[in-house]
Amino acid sequence: MRTIGALIFPDFELLDVFGPMEMFGLLPDLYDLHLVGLTVGAIPSKQKIAAHATLNTQDDPEFDILFVPGGMGARSVMADPALLNWINRAAAKAEYVMSVCTGSAILAKADVLDGLRATTNKMAYDWVVSQNDKVHWQPKARWVEDGKVFTSSGVSAGMDMALGAIARMHGTEQANEVAKWAEYTWHSDPDHDPFAVVHGLV
Amino acid sequence: MRTIGALIFPDFELLDVFGPMEMFGLLPDLYDLHLVGLTVGAIPSKQKIAAHATLNTQDDPEFDILFVPGGMGARSVMADPALLNWINRAAAKAEYVMSVCTGSAILAKADVLDGLRATTNKMAYDWVVSQNDKVHWQPKARWVEDGKVFTSSGVSAGMDMALGAIARMHGTEQANEVAKWAEYTWHSDPDHDPFAVVHGLV
Repeated sequence: MRTIGALIFPDFELLDVFGPMEMFGLLPDLYDLHLVGLTVGAIPSKQKIAAHATLNTQDDPEFDILFVPGGMGARSVMADPALLNWINRAAAKAEYVMSVCTGSAILAKADVLDGLRATTNKMAYDWVVSQNDKVHWQPKARWVEDGKVFTSSGVSAGMDMALGAIARMHGTEQANEVAKWAEYTWHSDPDHDPFAVVHGLV
Repeated sequence: MRTIGALIFPDFELLDVFGPMEMFGLLPDLYDLHLVGLTVGAIPSKQKIAAHATLNTQDDPEFDILFVPGGMGARSVMADPALLNWINRAAAKAEYVMSVCTGSAILAKADVLDGLRATTNKMAYDWVVSQNDKVHWQPKARWVEDGKVFTSSGVSAGMDMALGAIARMHGTEQANEVAKWAEYTWHSDPDHDPFAVVHGLV
């Protein structure tokens, strides 16, 4: 059983968090899900509706899997040195680290991606890569795995990455089972990124 | 601007709610999102992590779009006559009514689907259709539109349905824009249902 700590912050992107959490959450014997905020309680998403954090970063929680979403609120997170410090320490202690969309800009700013290959939202690509030039940014990837770090492209790509992570930990058959339960057509090739083209990156 | 009231209840399925809310939420000038619970405050999902309801059904809220998800908790909702009564009244007043997954079992039990074509989760199909024989249940459909009512297949199908609803209200180009922002490959044909086959319904 692995614990997952998903960071949420004001103006986080809803599906960045709940798409992957659906996939992991369909395996309740394997993954134990938690939402972590700067404060405990209701945290409003970019879409206004709120999720409820039960842990806060100031208590220095540790998880087997640290999960960081993106969204408009990423910019505030990146301007908070104490929060970046927690992310850096929690990432170092985690077995796996994952981000969706501009969550990789947060990880980059927290120096978690130095020397690693990583990807991000394709619409915000230029802004994200400008945050840290020690990261080997990939302009065309649905998601990227480098060692213990998984980073995905924008919003919906998080679901494909989560299934990829389940496949790595528990096999492709298990990931396919989860996709079937969720009636989700898994885009299982991490290199297939139709949105890089849409946004003119290739 | 249309208001959306998404019902949440203990053990609701995460992605049933937040997949569609992501799509509608990407158009903040067109849709105003609210989570409605039996009580205000944190409501735990089937995946344990909680969302935060800001309105409660006992205050009899009305919305332009009534949205009902599924999940293990659907069975408790269907055993609550006062809640079914609110759903029936709110549906009658709404411009559109939508459900995802076993949410259509709730709508069926609340007599919202009588005489209409509707679909549901394919894994729970037999149980759902047994709830109300006045509904014209469709075993093979990604989602079904009949008049003002949209019902989708399991979990992930809600995102395709939400984009279909956006297309109906604001045109296909708008729906494609939302899908692009979310880096989501929209399965835009409501009759294409690969999961009916997986679960042996066709």
